[in-house]
Amino acid sequence: MKDNTGKINDLIKKRFSPLAFDKRAIEEYKIMRLFEAARWAPSSRNEQPWRFIFATRDDGPAFENMISTLAEGNRIWAQNVPLLILSIASFYSSFSGKPNYYAMHDTGMAVGNLLVQATEMGLYVHQMGGYDKKMARQKLGIPEQYEPVAMIAVGYRGNPDDLPDDLQKREQARRTRLPVEEIVFRRVWKTT
Amino acid sequence: MKDNTGKINDLIKKRFSPLAFDKRAIEEYKIMRLFEAARWAPSSRNEQPWRFIFATRDDGPAFENMISTLAEGNRIWAQNVPLLILSIASFYSSFSGKPNYYAMHDTGMAVGNLLVQATEMGLYVHQMGGYDKKMARQKLGIPEQYEPVAMIAVGYRGNPDDLPDDLQKREQARRTRLPVEEIVFRRVWKTT
Repeated sequence: MKDNTGKINDLIKKRFSPLAFDKRAIEEYKIMRLFEAARWAPSSRNEQPWRFIFATRDDGPAFENMISTLAEGNRIWAQNVPLLILSIASFYSSFSGKPNYYAMHDTGMAVGNLLVQATEMGLYVHQMGGYDKKMARQKLGIPEQYEPVAMIAVGYRGNPDDLPDDLQKREQARRTRLPVEEIVFRRVWKTT
Repeated sequence: MKDNTGKINDLIKKRFSPLAFDKRAIEEYKIMRLFEAARWAPSSRNEQPWRFIFATRDDGPAFENMISTLAEGNRIWAQNVPLLILSIASFYSSFSGKPNYYAMHDTGMAVGNLLVQATEMGLYVHQMGGYDKKMARQKLGIPEQYEPVAMIAVGYRGNPDDLPDDLQKREQARRTRLPVEEIVFRRVWKTT
């Protein structure tokens, strides 16, 4: 199998998760389009398990609420972003009440759409697992049958030169991927 | 909040999960680009938990192996597709060996990339949860620490008029989504 880097969709190729964000506010219509894109993802039995809570810097205390849940290593850069989104997954089927095996998976696909849409509109996105999920649940009023997934920072690109050295290095370090031969197998597992 | 249907990325808008597929083979370079696109998805700690096994109709018994795992209601239409992919998730961190909360989520994001890339190349994708996961694991040799996720049918669009009436209806029935007000909340849960 041959590696085809460079021939894929431009938005997928361009996307990455920066640490340097501009403080500039995001236009409201662009924020709504992020969710509109997410909304059209496919899902198992069309369950649409994804939910989103968002706040912009202009939302004041609501925004600070979200910032306050972040791990220190994330807060140091994410406190500058203009928009935070918490992705949330409904872990139970709305039809049967049983656990939905695809809850996280389908929420990931919805976020995938959001990433494409963001990139198309000149925005960058950095998702974080490093935040206090219990605190987020409490402060944002998330019901029990839903699970907080990722805290999502969104904004225009900032100047990496404005970052402290260690963050600059962290930002650069992330653009590696496993070779395609290690993740894709033809016919059966690992006989490429 | 206003609904913004129609202003989102064209590929996201165009994508849907058909039941009518053309039998025409997919070019090998296009197959590889699907995985290349998937590969560049983001993931928690860059774990890249996604794996894929694929077979084309030309792979003969290997392809029949995958077809044989499908639930009857899926086999009836999916047996005509030229390409089947099984998405697979590594449920444990390759760093710590601990469960990876984002395994399914990040695999979903990778598949989201695959969907965008497929649509850009004129291909359609229909994911299925309805297949025998135990049989798939056994027939495809999937190791214990990995979990089968979705059986993914890929192909060019077929003529829906060639479908039996009930499948035509099933294909049309799927294009609904919850209103944006039910899935997106500003500041806190459900106070839009």
